[in-house]
Amino acid sequence: MNKNSSNIMALTPNTSNKRETVCIFGTGDFGRALGHKMIQSGYPVVYGSRSTQISNLIPKDAEVLGHAEAAQKAAVIIIAIQRQHYNFLTSLSQVLHGKVLVDISNNLKLKQYPESNAEYLAQLLPGSKVVKGFNTVSAWALQSGTLDASRQVFICGDDVEAKQMVMNIVHGLGLTPVDKGSLLAAQEIENYPLQLFPMWKFPIFLSLGLGLFFFFYSLALDVIHTYVYDNNNFSFFIAITIPNRVFPVLALTLFGLVYLPGIFAAIIQLYRGTKYRRFPDWLDRWMLARKQLGLIALALASLHAVFTLVTPLRPYSSWRTSNRIISQVLNNETVSLNHTNAWLIDSYLAMGMLGLFLFVLLGITSLPSVSNSVNWREFRFIQSKVGYLALILCTAHTMIFGGKWFLNPSAYKWYLPDIYMLSLVVPCAVLVVKFVLIFPCVDKHLTRIRQGWERNPRYSE
Amino acid sequence: MNKNSSNIMALTPNTSNKRETVCIFGTGDFGRALGHKMIQSGYPVVYGSRSTQISNLIPKDAEVLGHAEAAQKAAVIIIAIQRQHYNFLTSLSQVLHGKVLVDISNNLKLKQYPESNAEYLAQLLPGSKVVKGFNTVSAWALQSGTLDASRQVFICGDDVEAKQMVMNIVHGLGLTPVDKGSLLAAQEIENYPLQLFPMWKFPIFLSLGLGLFFFFYSLALDVIHTYVYDNNNFSFFIAITIPNRVFPVLALTLFGLVYLPGIFAAIIQLYRGTKYRRFPDWLDRWMLARKQLGLIALALASLHAVFTLVTPLRPYSSWRTSNRIISQVLNNETVSLNHTNAWLIDSYLAMGMLGLFLFVLLGITSLPSVSNSVNWREFRFIQSKVGYLALILCTAHTMIFGGKWFLNPSAYKWYLPDIYMLSLVVPCAVLVVKFVLIFPCVDKHLTRIRQGWERNPRYSE
Amino acid sequence: MNKNSSNIMALTPNTSNKRETVCIFGTGDFGRALGHKMIQSGYPVVYGSRSTQISNLIPKDAEVLGHAEAAQKAAVIIIAIQRQHYNFLTSLSQVLHGKVLVDISNNLKLKQYPESNAEYLAQLLPGSKVVKGFNTVSAWALQSGTLDASRQVFICGDDVEAKQMVMNIVHGLGLTPVDKGSLLAAQEIENYPLQLFPMWKFPIFLSLGLGLFFFFYSLALDVIHTYVYDNNNFSFFIAITIPNRVFPVLALTLFGLVYLPGIFAAIIQLYRGTKYRRFPDWLDRWMLARKQLGLIALALASLHAVFTLVTPLRPYSSWRTSNRIISQVLNNETVSLNHTNAWLIDSYLAMGMLGLFLFVLLGITSLPSVSNSVNWREFRFIQSKVGYLALILCTAHTMIFGGKWFLNPSAYKWYLPDIYMLSLVVPCAVLVVKFVLIFPCVDKHLTRIRQGWERNPRYSE
Repeated sequence: MNKNSSNIMALTPNTSNKRETVCIFGTGDFGRALGHKMIQSGYPVVYGSRSTQISNLIPKDAEVLGHAEAAQKAAVIIIAIQRQHYNFLTSLSQVLHGKVLVDISNNLKLKQYPESNAEYLAQLLPGSKVVKGFNTVSAWALQSGTLDASRQVFICGDDVEAKQMVMNIVHGLGLTPVDKGSLLAAQEIENYPLQLFPMWKFPIFLSLGLGLFFFFYSLALDVIHTYVYDNNNFSFFIAITIPNRVFPVLALTLFGLVYLPGIFAAIIQLYRGTKYRRFPDWLDRWMLARKQLGLIALALASLHAVFTLVTPLRPYSSWRTSNRIISQVLNNETVSLNHTNAWLIDSYLAMGMLGLFLFVLLGITSLPSVSNSVNWREFRFIQSKVGYLALILCTAHTMIFGGKWFLNPSAYKWYLPDIYMLSLVVPCAVLVVKFVLIFPCVDKHLTRIRQGWERNPRYSE
Repeated sequence: MNKNSSNIMALTPNTSNKRETVCIFGTGDFGRALGHKMIQSGYPVVYGSRSTQISNLIPKDAEVLGHAEAAQKAAVIIIAIQRQHYNFLTSLSQVLHGKVLVDISNNLKLKQYPESNAEYLAQLLPGSKVVKGFNTVSAWALQSGTLDASRQVFICGDDVEAKQMVMNIVHGLGLTPVDKGSLLAAQEIENYPLQLFPMWKFPIFLSLGLGLFFFFYSLALDVIHTYVYDNNNFSFFIAITIPNRVFPVLALTLFGLVYLPGIFAAIIQLYRGTKYRRFPDWLDRWMLARKQLGLIALALASLHAVFTLVTPLRPYSSWRTSNRIISQVLNNETVSLNHTNAWLIDSYLAMGMLGLFLFVLLGITSLPSVSNSVNWREFRFIQSKVGYLALILCTAHTMIFGGKWFLNPSAYKWYLPDIYMLSLVVPCAVLVVKFVLIFPCVDKHLTRIRQGWERNPRYSE
Repeated sequence: MNKNSSNIMALTPNTSNKRETVCIFGTGDFGRALGHKMIQSGYPVVYGSRSTQISNLIPKDAEVLGHAEAAQKAAVIIIAIQRQHYNFLTSLSQVLHGKVLVDISNNLKLKQYPESNAEYLAQLLPGSKVVKGFNTVSAWALQSGTLDASRQVFICGDDVEAKQMVMNIVHGLGLTPVDKGSLLAAQEIENYPLQLFPMWKFPIFLSLGLGLFFFFYSLALDVIHTYVYDNNNFSFFIAITIPNRVFPVLALTLFGLVYLPGIFAAIIQLYRGTKYRRFPDWLDRWMLARKQLGLIALALASLHAVFTLVTPLRPYSSWRTSNRIISQVLNNETVSLNHTNAWLIDSYLAMGMLGLFLFVLLGITSLPSVSNSVNWREFRFIQSKVGYLALILCTAHTMIFGGKWFLNPSAYKWYLPDIYMLSLVVPCAVLVVKFVLIFPCVDKHLTRIRQGWERNPRYSE
C-alpha cells in the first residue's frame, strides 16, 4: 500500500502509524494462511512453534521462534492450535500475562465441548485477555484472496481495548470486524461456521414432502387417468404441465401455512385469556419458520408464473390452437367472443399477477438490508396488511380459475377432487378464521390481551 | 447456552465472564417482556416496583424489590415507566447517582413533548448517565421470539462507557446495537417507531391520483366510447386491458417526474448564477421523493411487462387470432409478412424490454446494501447515465408503439388524444431540456456554478 | 430538532448535551458545504481563513476568524484546504497541538502522492490527532440534502478518542460513520471516491467483445446467409431474434467462464502437489472477477427469458402460425400432436426455466446484505453446488434445444456451426473436467492438498 513507507519512518520515527508485530502460535494450515495475509497487509509476523526449523510452507518473510520468544515480540498472539493442546499454554502463563490472545479455533461439530474454546482458554489463562475471532473466515479464501463471500469477522471479548486491537488488525487485512459483545458470545461465534441453513431445514423438507405428494396426485389424475380411460399418452406433461400444477398448489398451501400459526396464536391467547404463557413448542418453532416458508412459497409462485407464460411456446398449445381453428373453419362456425369467459379468465389472470406482485413486495422487504431500514410498525404493515391482501388475491385467483368446475362431477376423476381444490383448504381456513378475528368485539379483546391485560390475573402472595 | 456454567464459575471465581444483574424499574408490559428476554439470555433481573407483591406476570426467576434496593443491585437500570412519572425518580437521585439509566420510553405521537424523553430524564438526574435504547423493539416480538424484522436496537448517549455497557446487553440478547451518537439523537430515535413510511406518502398519493385519472380516461375512450359508437361491450377490458394501459402510462410519467426536478434545479442555478441559494421548498421536497417515485414507476413498469406477456393466454387474444386466420382462409388471401410492421413492433418490444432491464438495474442499486457498496461517483453514473438511457428507451418504446397513429384522426376519439400520448408529455419535456443542458456551452457554465463559481459574488463589508 | 433548547440549557447549565463548536480551515466549496450542513444540524461553526472578509458564500451564522483564533475555539478542526498548502499548517503547530484534525481532502487521480494526504498531515503535525473522513461524501449532496446514495462516512485514525469525536459529529449530521481502523486505511479511503467500478471493467469489456463477435456471427448466418441464398430479407431479426440468440450464447459462455478458473486452480494444485504456491497472476485476477462475470451472465440470461416470452406478440410469430394453420387447412391434413417434439421442447423449456431460477437464487445470495448473513459453508454450498446444478441445467437446455440439428448438415451454413454450438464449448469443457475432478481418487487427493498436505515438502533448515 505504502510504497516508500521507509521514507515516512525516517521522517517521523515516533509515529504510531505502522503495523505492529503479530505473533502466531502454531504453523498449521489456518495459521499459515493468516500469516500470509498479514504479511501481505504489512504486518510483521512471528511464528511461535515447537520446532524452529523453517518449513517452506511458512511465509518466507515471517520469523519462526520458540513460543516464549515469539510471544515476547508481540502484544497480540493468534492461538492457531487445537483446543486439545491448549493446556500446554498454561506453562507460558507468565509470558502471556496481559497479552491479547486471539482464539481462532473451530470445532468439528456442534456442542462438542461444554464451554466454548475461547472461554476455556480464558479459564486456563486468567491473566491474558482473550478475544474470539477469525474462525468464521475460510483459510482457503484468505489464501487465494477470493473473499467473494462475507468479509465480516465476528469478534467478541471481555476487554474492550483488546477487542479494539484485534478489530484494528481485521481492518488492516481489508476485512470488516463485527463486534458481537462479551466473550459469552464465543459459543455462538464458534457454532456459526458449522451451520448449514438450520432455519431452512424444516421448511424445505416440508415443501419437498408436500411437493412429492402433489406431484404423484397430479400425475395420477392428469396422466395416468387420461391414459387409462381416454388412452391418450400425455407423458410429456411431466416436463411442464404437472410442475405447473404442483408449483401453484404448493405455493398457495405454504403461503397459507405462513399465516396459520398467527391464527393459532390468537386463538390460544383468546382461550387462555393471557399472553403471559408460552406457546406450545411446535407453534414457537412454526412461527420462527414463517419467513422461510414464505420465501419458498414466493419462489414456487414465481416459477408458476414463468411456467405459465411459456405456454404459447409449447407444441401442445399450438396443436390445440390449430385444432380449434381448423374445426371452426370446417364447421363454418361464426366465431364470437364468449364475454363471460373473457371476464373470468381475465380476472383470474389479473388477480394472480397482482397477488404475485404483492408477494414479491413482501419478499423484497424480507431482504436483510431492506428490513433493517423499516421500523417495526412498517414491517408489520407490510407483512400483515399487504401479506393478507396477497393471500386473498392468490386464493381468489385459484377459486376463479376453478370456476364452474367445483360443481361439475367430471372434474372429480376417480372421485378425487382436482389438485387446485386441495390447495384452497389451508388459505380458506386461514381467511375464514381471520375474518372472525377482526370482528370488532373479538379484535378488541385480543388487542387488550396483547397489551398485557389478563382475564384471570393471579398474584402469588 | 452454557450448560454447565456453574462448573466454570467454580473453576474461575473471579472471571468477568458472566452476565451482570440488570435492574428494571416498572412492571408494565414492556418491562416484563424485556425482563423475560434478559432472563432467557442469562441476565439476573431485579425489578424495582412500588408494590413488591409478586405478580405471576413477572418472570418467575426475577426478584422484585423496592426501587431503591433494586437500583443498588445493578449498574444498569432500565427505566420502563412512563415519562409523566419520571419526576418521582428525582427522589432516588442519590441512589441513581453514577448509574446507567436506559430510557426505553416511546411517545404516542410525534412532537408530543418539546424535548425527547431521554433528554428530559438526563435533566432530572444530572448525576446519572442516560442512554436511550430498546424503544424501537416490539414487546410482542421480544416475548414471542419472532424477531423476523429488524434486530437492530438504536442506542444513543453522551457517556461512551455507559453506551458500551448497554450495547453489551443488547448483544447479549441476540440483538444488534446501532450507535446513533450523542443523546441529541434521542428525539430521532423516539420518533422512529412512530413513522409509517413518511417518505412514501406523497409519491403514493400522487401515483394514486394520476392513476385514477388515467384509469377513467382510458375507461371512457376504450370501453365507453366503443360501447356508445360501436355497440361493443368490452367491459372485461377492466381486468387486464385497461390496467395495462394505465400502468405503462403512469410508469413513464412518474419516471419523467424523477428527472424533472433535476432539470428545474439546473435551470434555477443557471438563472441565479450561483448554487449558494436554497431551492424553493417544493423543489427540495420533490428531490427527496425521487427515489420513491422511481421505485413506484419501476413497480408499474414491471406490472406492465407481466400484463403484456400474459396476452396470448387471454380469450380476447385467441378470439382475434381465430378471426384473423379464418378470414384469411375464407378470402383465400396469400399471407405475406409485413416487414415494416415486423420492424416497428419488434423494435418497440425490444426497446421496452431493454428499458425495463436498465430500470431494474437502477432499482437494484437503490437497495440499501447495494447503494452502500458503491461510491458517490458510481452511484451518480448509474442513476444519471443509466437512468437517462432507460428513460430514452422507454420514451422511444412508447413513441414507436404509437407509430403512425399520431397523425391519424381516428386515434382521437371524442377529439381526445389517446392515453399513451399523454404519457409522453413529461418525459419528452425532460429529454428536450436535458438535451439543451448538455450542450457544451451550457454544460460548462453549469459545471462551474456547481463547483462553487458565482456570477455576482458579493462580499458583505 | 430541539425547539426550546434554551430552556434546557437554563435548567442544566453543565450538561454536555449540546453541539460543540467545530472549526473549519478553508472556505472552499466543500468547506462551505460542510459548514452549511453543520449549522443546519446545530453545530456552531467558526471558519479559519486568511482573509476574514466575510463572503456571502459562507453560511451566515458562521464566524470567520484568522486561523489561530479559529482553531482555539474548537477541539475538532476540519482541514478543508488542498494538500499542496498543508505545509503552512506547520506554523500553527503550537495552536493545533492536541487538537483533532479532520483531513477531508481528495486527490484528482489514483497514486498521485506516495503517501495518503492524511498520513502526510500526521507527519507534518505529529502533536495533533489526525482523523481521515468526509472525503467520500459529495459537496453537492451535502448542500442539496439529497443524499439518496450512501450515507456512510468512512473514518480512520490512530487515536480512538479523536475518532469517536469525529464519529459523533458524523452522527450529528444524520450520516453513518464507518470505522475503517487506523490511519493506514487513509490511502484506501482516499482512493475510494476516485474509482468507477474497477472490478467490472474487465468483465464488461470481455462481454462486449464476445457479444459483438456473436452478434456479427449470428447476423451473417441468420440474416445475410438467408438473404444471399433464399433471397429473404429478415433484417428485422436485428431487433429481437438476433439479440435473443446472442444473449443466451453469451450468458452460457460467461457462466462457464465463472467456473473455469476454479477448474484451472484445481488442475494446477494437483500438478504442483501443493497449495502453497501462488497462482499465476491472470488466474488470480480471473478468480476475483467471477462474481461480476456471473452477474453479467445472469442479466443476459434474464434478458433471454424476456425476449423469448415476448415471441407470441411478434408479427413474425403470428405470420408463421397463420401460415401453418392455413396450409394445414388447405392440405386437409389431420393435425396430430408430435409427442417426441412435445417432449423435447417441453423439456428444454423446463430446464431453461429451472436453470434460470437457480441462477437467480445465486444472484440473490450475492447481494451484499444476503451474503453477509450466510456463513462460509452456506455460501460455498450455494455458489458451488447450486451453481453447478444451474450450469448443468442451462447446458442441457441448450443441448436439447439443438437436438437433432447437431448431425444435420443443413445446420452448418457456410460450413460454420450454428451459434448455440459455440456456446456449448466452455460449459461442456468445464463440466467434463469437473466430472473427472469429483472422482473419489482425484477428489480425495485434492482435498488433502487443500488441507495443507504437500507432495514434496521441503524444509530449508
